[in-house]
Amino acid sequence: MENFTFYSPTRFVFGRGAELRAGELVRSLGGTRALIVYGGGSVKRSGLYDRVVASLQAAGVGHCEIGGVLPNPRSGLVYAGIDLARREGADFVLSMGGGSAIDTGKAIALGMRYAGDFWDFFCGKATPAAAAPHGVIPTLPAAGSEGSNSCVITQEDGMLKRGLNIDLNRPLFALMNPELTFTLPPYQTACGIVDMLSHVLERYFTDTPDVDLTDRMAEALMRSIVAAAPAAMRDPADYEARATLLWAGTLAHNDSVGVGREQDWSSHRIGHELSARYDCAHGAVLSVLFPAWMRYVYRHDVMRFAQYASRVWGVEMNFAHPETTALAGIARTAAFFASLGMPRTLAQLGADEADIPTLAAGVVRAPDGTCGRFVRLDTEAIEAILRLAAQSDGEEAFK
Amino acid sequence: MENFTFYSPTRFVFGRGAELRAGELVRSLGGTRALIVYGGGSVKRSGLYDRVVASLQAAGVGHCEIGGVLPNPRSGLVYAGIDLARREGADFVLSMGGGSAIDTGKAIALGMRYAGDFWDFFCGKATPAAAAPHGVIPTLPAAGSEGSNSCVITQEDGMLKRGLNIDLNRPLFALMNPELTFTLPPYQTACGIVDMLSHVLERYFTDTPDVDLTDRMAEALMRSIVAAAPAAMRDPADYEARATLLWAGTLAHNDSVGVGREQDWSSHRIGHELSARYDCAHGAVLSVLFPAWMRYVYRHDVMRFAQYASRVWGVEMNFAHPETTALAGIARTAAFFASLGMPRTLAQLGADEADIPTLAAGVVRAPDGTCGRFVRLDTEAIEAILRLAAQSDGEEAFK
Repeated sequence: MENFTFYSPTRFVFGRGAELRAGELVRSLGGTRALIVYGGGSVKRSGLYDRVVASLQAAGVGHCEIGGVLPNPRSGLVYAGIDLARREGADFVLSMGGGSAIDTGKAIALGMRYAGDFWDFFCGKATPAAAAPHGVIPTLPAAGSEGSNSCVITQEDGMLKRGLNIDLNRPLFALMNPELTFTLPPYQTACGIVDMLSHVLERYFTDTPDVDLTDRMAEALMRSIVAAAPAAMRDPADYEARATLLWAGTLAHNDSVGVGREQDWSSHRIGHELSARYDCAHGAVLSVLFPAWMRYVYRHDVMRFAQYASRVWGVEMNFAHPETTALAGIARTAAFFASLGMPRTLAQLGADEADIPTLAAGVVRAPDGTCGRFVRLDTEAIEAILRLAAQSDGEEAFK
Repeated sequence: MENFTFYSPTRFVFGRGAELRAGELVRSLGGTRALIVYGGGSVKRSGLYDRVVASLQAAGVGHCEIGGVLPNPRSGLVYAGIDLARREGADFVLSMGGGSAIDTGKAIALGMRYAGDFWDFFCGKATPAAAAPHGVIPTLPAAGSEGSNSCVITQEDGMLKRGLNIDLNRPLFALMNPELTFTLPPYQTACGIVDMLSHVLERYFTDTPDVDLTDRMAEALMRSIVAAAPAAMRDPADYEARATLLWAGTLAHNDSVGVGREQDWSSHRIGHELSARYDCAHGAVLSVLFPAWMRYVYRHDVMRFAQYASRVWGVEMNFAHPETTALAGIARTAAFFASLGMPRTLAQLGADEADIPTLAAGVVRAPDGTCGRFVRLDTEAIEAILRLAAQSDGEEAFK
């Protein structure tokens, strides 16, 4: 086990009616006027916005609002939000929606307490010393932004997508009502499931020895996600399945199951390149990439992949041929993603095989020309993974 | 799944040398003079105290100290600590040692910010509005006080033992170095293992339906504790086993595996009565009581006990006779405790069977005359459990 720091100060209020506590909590944290940040307007159509505003009003908290956050959130709305908060005298940020709305709220909260350009923090010119208090109401279990220290914003001037991982990004509270996720379309539900499973997988495949406790916690989380997924897909209003996925999405990314171990994150790195180029959903990209990555790297640690197959997917261990078990686990992963209606090939993402060299070159920007930790991937390796991802079922390419 | 709030704001710094960050962290949290709280002096003999003081000095943080905290910590030292902190102008509390030192630090931190008698909080006369900042350095993985909201103090005037569970009790940071636990004697190590496993078990046996995620997280935690225990008993300096137990002890009691479910806690209630009367270690008492409680209640939900046996102990499920599987899991639990050298019977605790009625009467103080939630136990039921606990192996009594 490696040394680690685990810090997750967010107050998670979970269950039916959680959003109704917004006013009381903002007030108790000293907020007198909240800037509400949201996305495309589904929070207004669903009535969530009105319930939250009523709760703020009942607590004597004023509000102003900024909507229209898009996926892969942009800097423009962050600047607008900071300006609005200053003009309106807002002293609290309240974000509601998916990861993009929450990340926008995080960036606005940083900018509100900084005299310069908030982008300074994202391009490494400055380190934030403070953030305005920020509470969130997630409606899409996937990104885990409600419990994470990360914030990803795209600077429109040059379309630079940059992340900032700092403790100040962790929201003060998250109000999590599984009912708010009932109206998610199946495609978004499926993308979220692949996303949260990927957050666990990036942490699970590690070279760090003696990580039995986090291994088992990660396996527990994955088994529960896999068990809840079909129920949520079948009946969008299945409260228990939605509750499991909502809480699992938080645990998958607040580093509960990642402490003390080296983490990989190469599939995410490659995936960001694909989403940027083809404008695909993050979860859809990971559905194609993760099984391909697994097929490429599993020989690096066959027994770890066999453990994954056995403990997460219930594949019987083949003691004579552990590789068989390992491969069965990978096949089960791909089949599970497909069962959710997620894409299996680059072509299904609208990607062109001819772009593979360009894509691979875009991924490897680290000083040492590699990405990933479980297996360090150079440009050639990334191209090979993308070619596996181009097959209808990577297994053929592997053989 | 029930509605819940999960709030664990403590910054956990885990690994070799973690204690050396004391000065930097106290300073960053505004502390200028720390009151160091400790127990019997092992922290001085081990050199921990000196390393921490050096770290404080290097950060320009002054200190004063109060030692001598005993198991089942008393109010006298809390009053003395509050007085000392005031006289010396301490603005930070730094506790090091087991759960008793940490709980004493929690009570002192509350008292430092209150003009009245700190006991007002424990007897329900007042609610704390603030606490002095408090950091901890746990050296005994067991009570989980470093991450919990609870504090238990015994008022010497009348020997009233009272607990206070509030968010203000959660330490700001916990510096957790597994090496600090290498010198624990086997008996204390074993008591700690039983204690942390019991913290999971109290949460595991529940009537709340649809708790698959927390079930699996709890099972993961228990399997890891069971796997690490023999290694730590065999080689007290086994870093990886000690690290697993130290982190598991925190997770077992910060409610990670307890959210959204009704919890039982009757074994702890009965146990407190026994420790108070016979002055036994908490873990030793639970080693005797938990298997007896299980034998008494398992028929209430045979399938849950079968799940426990199968998933935690690897007992093969007997589909024709699930009761056989359930009982095998209970027997494995008792055998595991015995393998650690823990007592199995009331007599081994020095308890007298003739006291059973008095003990049972002492446990049931709730308005409705019961204790426990999984099965509500009245006086008669508690007496039956204690009689099972009097047997060399409760099974005979059960048949």
